[in-house]
Amino acid sequence: MRLKHILTTQQFSDKKTLEELFKLANKFEIWDKKRKIPQFLKGMISASVFYEPSTRTRFSFESAMLKLGGEVLTTENAGHFSSAIKGESLEDSIRIIGGYCDAIVIRHYEVGAAERAAKVSLVPIINAGDGAGEHPTQALLDIYTIWKEVGRIDGLKIAMLGDLLHGRTIHSLIHLLPLFKNIEIFLVSPKELKIPQEYKSFLRERNSRNAAAFLEFPSLAPNKSKLSPAGSLGNIKFTETEDINRVLPQIDVLYTTRIQKERFKSLKTYERVKNSFVIDEKSLKLLPKKSIIMHPLPRVSEINPIVDNDQRAAYFRQAKNGLYIRMALLKMLLA
Amino acid sequence: MRLKHILTTQQFSDKKTLEELFKLANKFEIWDKKRKIPQFLKGMISASVFYEPSTRTRFSFESAMLKLGGEVLTTENAGHFSSAIKGESLEDSIRIIGGYCDAIVIRHYEVGAAERAAKVSLVPIINAGDGAGEHPTQALLDIYTIWKEVGRIDGLKIAMLGDLLHGRTIHSLIHLLPLFKNIEIFLVSPKELKIPQEYKSFLRERNSRNAAAFLEFPSLAPNKSKLSPAGSLGNIKFTETEDINRVLPQIDVLYTTRIQKERFKSLKTYERVKNSFVIDEKSLKLLPKKSIIMHPLPRVSEINPIVDNDQRAAYFRQAKNGLYIRMALLKMLLA
Amino acid sequence: MRLKHILTTQQFSDKKTLEELFKLANKFEIWDKKRKIPQFLKGMISASVFYEPSTRTRFSFESAMLKLGGEVLTTENAGHFSSAIKGESLEDSIRIIGGYCDAIVIRHYEVGAAERAAKVSLVPIINAGDGAGEHPTQALLDIYTIWKEVGRIDGLKIAMLGDLLHGRTIHSLIHLLPLFKNIEIFLVSPKELKIPQEYKSFLRERNSRNAAAFLEFPSLAPNKSKLSPAGSLGNIKFTETEDINRVLPQIDVLYTTRIQKERFKSLKTYERVKNSFVIDEKSLKLLPKKSIIMHPLPRVSEINPIVDNDQRAAYFRQAKNGLYIRMALLKMLLA
Repeated sequence: MRLKHILTTQQFSDKKTLEELFKLANKFEIWDKKRKIPQFLKGMISASVFYEPSTRTRFSFESAMLKLGGEVLTTENAGHFSSAIKGESLEDSIRIIGGYCDAIVIRHYEVGAAERAAKVSLVPIINAGDGAGEHPTQALLDIYTIWKEVGRIDGLKIAMLGDLLHGRTIHSLIHLLPLFKNIEIFLVSPKELKIPQEYKSFLRERNSRNAAAFLEFPSLAPNKSKLSPAGSLGNIKFTETEDINRVLPQIDVLYTTRIQKERFKSLKTYERVKNSFVIDEKSLKLLPKKSIIMHPLPRVSEINPIVDNDQRAAYFRQAKNGLYIRMALLKMLLA
Repeated sequence: MRLKHILTTQQFSDKKTLEELFKLANKFEIWDKKRKIPQFLKGMISASVFYEPSTRTRFSFESAMLKLGGEVLTTENAGHFSSAIKGESLEDSIRIIGGYCDAIVIRHYEVGAAERAAKVSLVPIINAGDGAGEHPTQALLDIYTIWKEVGRIDGLKIAMLGDLLHGRTIHSLIHLLPLFKNIEIFLVSPKELKIPQEYKSFLRERNSRNAAAFLEFPSLAPNKSKLSPAGSLGNIKFTETEDINRVLPQIDVLYTTRIQKERFKSLKTYERVKNSFVIDEKSLKLLPKKSIIMHPLPRVSEINPIVDNDQRAAYFRQAKNGLYIRMALLKMLLA
Repeated sequence: MRLKHILTTQQFSDKKTLEELFKLANKFEIWDKKRKIPQFLKGMISASVFYEPSTRTRFSFESAMLKLGGEVLTTENAGHFSSAIKGESLEDSIRIIGGYCDAIVIRHYEVGAAERAAKVSLVPIINAGDGAGEHPTQALLDIYTIWKEVGRIDGLKIAMLGDLLHGRTIHSLIHLLPLFKNIEIFLVSPKELKIPQEYKSFLRERNSRNAAAFLEFPSLAPNKSKLSPAGSLGNIKFTETEDINRVLPQIDVLYTTRIQKERFKSLKTYERVKNSFVIDEKSLKLLPKKSIIMHPLPRVSEINPIVDNDQRAAYFRQAKNGLYIRMALLKMLLA
């Protein structure tokens, strides 16, 4: 598959593209460990244009570019530093910066910024997160981590835990999972942070759709619904609950997210909720031996550090997988 | 010509040096398009030492360095971040940083900072703008853009539009134009933003000077006047006006600049002025077919985005030319 | 010697390791001057993770990495920009960043941060200063500068001038000097800024210890005293005084430090002290011809700029030596 930009998880709503990507990411991991990475991007330059800070995501993309033989231009705070403060439009900035590089990795606080950038850009745009919008490379590294750690995605039981109302990574993952067969999802959250209705409708609709749609490729027209139909192979079930302990023994994957204080009106509610959704030694006892624990990071108190030493704690490996997914994406875009 | 530092447009007050530079910049553009740039600066390092932010200028220099095979050190906010806040002098900072690199690209808020840096530096200094002072590489990319887009500079009719009082790029361009034959300049601005008297005196003086001065090279003594005599080939005319529409049909080049709100005492005056100096579809109808529209960017509302799609809109190509001019300068300084 | 991390000056409390380091640093200087540096770190990436700004130190490390053929990831303000503000622990940040690079150069405002980082890091940690704690590469470049400039360290008379109470570089140097024979130290400071008692006890203890301890290697256990016994060859003398002029004629090395206004309760005291500890033309007349003047920089008014042109002013060469020491350390850690 030939990619022009990477803007939304929907571009990967096709099992074949995903598998191609996973295999390439896996190759890069092997090459990296042997310290023999083909220098596919020799002589190329990516520009990290971050309108809001995200050191980890930036480093991950830049490391990917450098390991492929490329070079990077970088700004940590494009909003303050660039001519944005003089009133220049995002579009103008992107057109100019595109003259100095071969790809732009953009992080922005506004939904849709990456798509606006792509419309005028001379070079490929990679969306490294646009506000409450998309963060497609995170979604891809998440699903890649499941594939790599568990060995398959079809048939898995996956719990999503924490702030399902705002959690962007959760929303993206829900978009990708219907591509696989017989998935069962447990949505575990305090009632204040339940998943929005639209995602439940999406899952129900997916479940009833015909497998024939599998290879359909989503249109990228500007007015498309965020949850427009994508390919689906089979049935997908979901349950909502507040009781994590009842869920833990049944699952293959636990995807935990951060519960942010600022989401709560009452501090009391926050304290109650915060403590009842912590993964600790007791949770480890309930979790099956072959399951994995994921987290998009940063974590604060939702996973006790004691869990880190358990082999099932996959979150640091998950972060590292971001490097290989990004190498694969950069290669697919530029080489 | 052997350059030691790049501090002021005056160092290029010699047609031969300019032409050498233009031809080299042009070569780099061709090599870049073929993706076969000779790695002249392999093993060399430039340091971007920016005391005030300018992401675009910084990226342009860094991209130039990287494309030539070099590497970069970079700081976006040297004023806040370096030992400047501990009271270290600019001179000390430059002496130390010069030990870690092969060239320093400096941006500073104080007039004369680049020259002060050059006096103590162990490595070439490139002035990337020093306050209201000089921004020589911008002036060079501007004149290069005219040369490249129109095919010549001699005999051109050039309108300068907008804030001619503060516009540093306009002032630099006026300094370079007398090197060419039979130039006619239209200075179009609201009366609040007319060009300073000294530039008119300079143009009048140029006009009366003898062509014999052509190869004279300006001294770079510290106390020299900003407008000291430079070489001139022939007569140069200028007219001041507020009426852009009368000027548009006669010109080869329209150089537009940003009108900044903060320059006006009265908001009313600003609003009137802002609207009467906008380039839009109507302006395109008045402009000759073979003319070009330039702008140093960022632009805000002074050029309507609808103009962008017209072939005469040269401002994004102009920004890109900055890359090739900077590659040529880095090569001339370091290789 | 095989290094795993560089955390504290104590790791170098062994004359042999120091000499190995000095010789390697010297080789890098020669190679650099010939522009023929072996590309020992080709394909490797270091990450500068600076929680507080220090442009000079950062540039010095990054230049070292680039000159060795490596690449760099960089953040100038990890504290503000990274997920630290979301509450992520330093340990988590380090584990994740370690997945994207081959070494982490960390600068932090908290004592012990580098050691905490080293405990969880997948890659070597280099301490580039942790608050009032350690800055081992500065100590190493200081002692290297003496070795290189004077030709030996044994038998030298060294004055330490200025703020001996807070001066981290002075404290580290005192830790290393007992490794050499027959050193005499003059501690010259205003009485408000005298060296802490513990350093005097350390020097007295060193003096009475047996040369047999020479090859002993300090344990790096977490609870070790900052001044635990290290190897010592011979006797070391020290004198405290306020009178710099009496000291100047007797010394081989003058190590000056900055006296910071904010350390004084009374502005009057500061003004008196500031002026009585300035190195100027008169000081140069008192100093022996073969002596050297050092300063960790930045300097403010404690060395008059007129001194800069004297051959004995070694402080800019000292800063440059930081490059070669850091190249040697990176090579020892990574190649």
